Amino acid sequence: MEQIDLLIYGASQVCVVPGVDGPQRGAQLGELGLIVDGAVAVHDGRILQTGYTDDMLRTYQATTAINAAERAVIPGFVDPHTHLPWYGDRAHEFEQRLAGATYMEIMAAGGGIMNTVRQVRQATLDDLVQDNLPRLRRMLQHGTTSAEAKTGYGLETAVELKQLEAMMHLGAAQPVEITPTFLPAHAVPPEYAGHTDAYVDLVVNEMLPAGAAWMAQQGVRLFCDVFCEAGVFDVSQTRRILETAAALGYGLKVHADEFEGLGGTKLAVELGAVSADHLVKTPDADIAALGQGNTIAVGLPGTPFGLGHHEYTPARKILAAGGALALATDLNPGTCWCESMQMVMALACRYLGLTQAQALAAATINAAYAIGRGQEIGSLEPGKQADLLILETADYRQLGYQFGANLVQTVIKKGRVVVGGQ
Amino acid sequence: MEQIDLLIYGASQVCVVPGVDGPQRGAQLGELGLIVDGAVAVHDGRILQTGYTDDMLRTYQATTAINAAERAVIPGFVDPHTHLPWYGDRAHEFEQRLAGATYMEIMAAGGGIMNTVRQVRQATLDDLVQDNLPRLRRMLQHGTTSAEAKTGYGLETAVELKQLEAMMHLGAAQPVEITPTFLPAHAVPPEYAGHTDAYVDLVVNEMLPAGAAWMAQQGVRLFCDVFCEAGVFDVSQTRRILETAAALGYGLKVHADEFEGLGGTKLAVELGAVSADHLVKTPDADIAALGQGNTIAVGLPGTPFGLGHHEYTPARKILAAGGALALATDLNPGTCWCESMQMVMALACRYLGLTQAQALAAATINAAYAIGRGQEIGSLEPGKQADLLILETADYRQLGYQFGANLVQTVIKKGRVVVGGQ
Repeated sequence: MEQIDLLIYGASQVCVVPGVDGPQRGAQLGELGLIVDGAVAVHDGRILQTGYTDDMLRTYQATTAINAAERAVIPGFVDPHTHLPWYGDRAHEFEQRLAGATYMEIMAAGGGIMNTVRQVRQATLDDLVQDNLPRLRRMLQHGTTSAEAKTGYGLETAVELKQLEAMMHLGAAQPVEITPTFLPAHAVPPEYAGHTDAYVDLVVNEMLPAGAAWMAQQGVRLFCDVFCEAGVFDVSQTRRILETAAALGYGLKVHADEFEGLGGTKLAVELGAVSADHLVKTPDADIAALGQGNTIAVGLPGTPFGLGHHEYTPARKILAAGGALALATDLNPGTCWCESMQMVMALACRYLGLTQAQALAAATINAAYAIGRGQEIGSLEPGKQADLLILETADYRQLGYQFGANLVQTVIKKGRVVVGGQ
Repeated sequence: MEQIDLLIYGASQVCVVPGVDGPQRGAQLGELGLIVDGAVAVHDGRILQTGYTDDMLRTYQATTAINAAERAVIPGFVDPHTHLPWYGDRAHEFEQRLAGATYMEIMAAGGGIMNTVRQVRQATLDDLVQDNLPRLRRMLQHGTTSAEAKTGYGLETAVELKQLEAMMHLGAAQPVEITPTFLPAHAVPPEYAGHTDAYVDLVVNEMLPAGAAWMAQQGVRLFCDVFCEAGVFDVSQTRRILETAAALGYGLKVHADEFEGLGGTKLAVELGAVSADHLVKTPDADIAALGQGNTIAVGLPGTPFGLGHHEYTPARKILAAGGALALATDLNPGTCWCESMQMVMALACRYLGLTQAQALAAATINAAYAIGRGQEIGSLEPGKQADLLILETADYRQLGYQFGANLVQTVIKKGRVVVGGQ
């Protein structure tokens, strides 16, 4: 008998969600590697083996053994697109919108994204950290064990760096691992209104180098993201920012096709971006490009839902083209305040046309690839970090089918129980 | 100083949601009686007084005092339309549907509501109780302190009575209070396929009297409900059942206009039903009737959402006509497995056009009236049962704005903390 740290056994289902050689693409999406009456052996914070309970109980003796009878075990969710950390809320703007105000009226009254920018600029580093801890706690309780986070509510160098600092503190203060993204090109700040190219100059000449210096100092790799959208940054401005970023050593991401299909997705594929995100209005030619390239398409169904819209990412077309699809929350204070990847799966089953198995793979292994961590997290394959969830239900297919409540009973991060227990 | 059991003080907001004289109708919907820096005094399981913290701390000395700083206090949610108790699940049918099967194909394979009927018929009383306790626990954790429950998965007398028995056991086993509804006319069972009138004979001649005998024996009042819908029970069959029920002492409810507007809502108003539920395809004349009558319109936005549909209850028209609107989950294993009234509020803000305040009143005081309990629960008025929630946020307007996660920190039922703590 081999002595190990942790054995989870007797699980009604263990969903391995394999993908160590790459994301699940096209018709392959939804492969679960399902083990009925399964067990997971964990040692030193890593997955040692998965298998049948009978075999595993004969092989391993564990310091901690968890009987997962009548419960399904899945990889921890990876949320590859959030706008943490921000400060404050915009509940009153949501109220104004419901009472009939237009987005332009709310903007004219100082609302919209600039409201959050103002609050983030004024917040201290500690304010930022404290304000975001409850959001990360809710994410963890709902099963998210790793998440991306973005700057983009500073829109000036020092505040963008303050957001990066806050991410580091937040990552150290609680279990959810944070992958940082630099997004100074999230919007054009009021001081540059009508002078987008001048702001792009600032991004390229000052902000990206400052972020690169921060990377070098922290020893952390950053992604650079751009909000490529009509009225914000066009494709050539996006290209200029991303090419500069690539030369400085950033990984690349793009916000593309949320409201208009400008060509941001094709650009993302051309530049080898790790992901292209939103993809609601994506033209067919760009969908075809996803099938050829290595860029992950990230659907964010919480955002059309949050806005009360009815049009969503054309997921089935992306899969038919052979693309790799991931899911994320887009967690932010304006269009989508949703911490739960389970909610995102429920939306994806209904409005993206995914089965529960496809949604699960998109929310775990493919989401891990969408932040460049597919080799380390997102599945229960041997050698991977032991980030996993025990559900309070016997069948993973309850995810997506049920909605609005939390089906995660126990969260294990790096081999340690961090939410719930036996 | 008056000695009392419980004082909640320092709350950023206390939302009283007044309505002791009747439901909030028309433009009045959304009146909250909001107290900033508020307190709630509770004694003997009832609300004694609400007021400003300063005054209340001078007046009362409490055995238990809860500091609710930076947290909002609202009435416990009332869920006036659920299909508890059922047995089993239909996750595989949801999967088949997502993979492209039609509802008719699923029905032909033994699926749909008859799948649940079969499972409920086979379940023992204890099976039914055990299978539904986790659902009630999730409801309570998400802030539901009282709920309606329906039979309708038996469709034969003994099994319908078994469902009533299960409700009594469930009500005794955990804190959520249950208001029982008798719904033998939920569907036409397979043994009566093509012979709806013969099944209506059975309902009227055998089932309703059996339910009435059960009422007399238990000393509990039942509502009688009918699924008035094209292809199920038409208006004249519905009338026959409800008139018989009224004569036997049942209160009345109607499932109306979910898929076609047959006239069920107008019938509900004419017969003085306490509620008419679903109301998606309701004709304008029936909406006008709601404005004149005392029947509460119950919107169930989780159901169109659960089905991936885009058409919802015309709530603003109902309010414009002077009607009283409530919200409910419709919790059931086929079209809407959702335990959370917070999720329902989020849907109502987006797709019924309600503000957060309107959604809150619809989910509390008006929901209480929709099960005939508006005088006892659903608001924080003196004399009412002390069912209340402390949110983990300072502003009730986070409800509906945020979605997918649980914002309830503490649940107090009849003056006792049953979820969370300080």
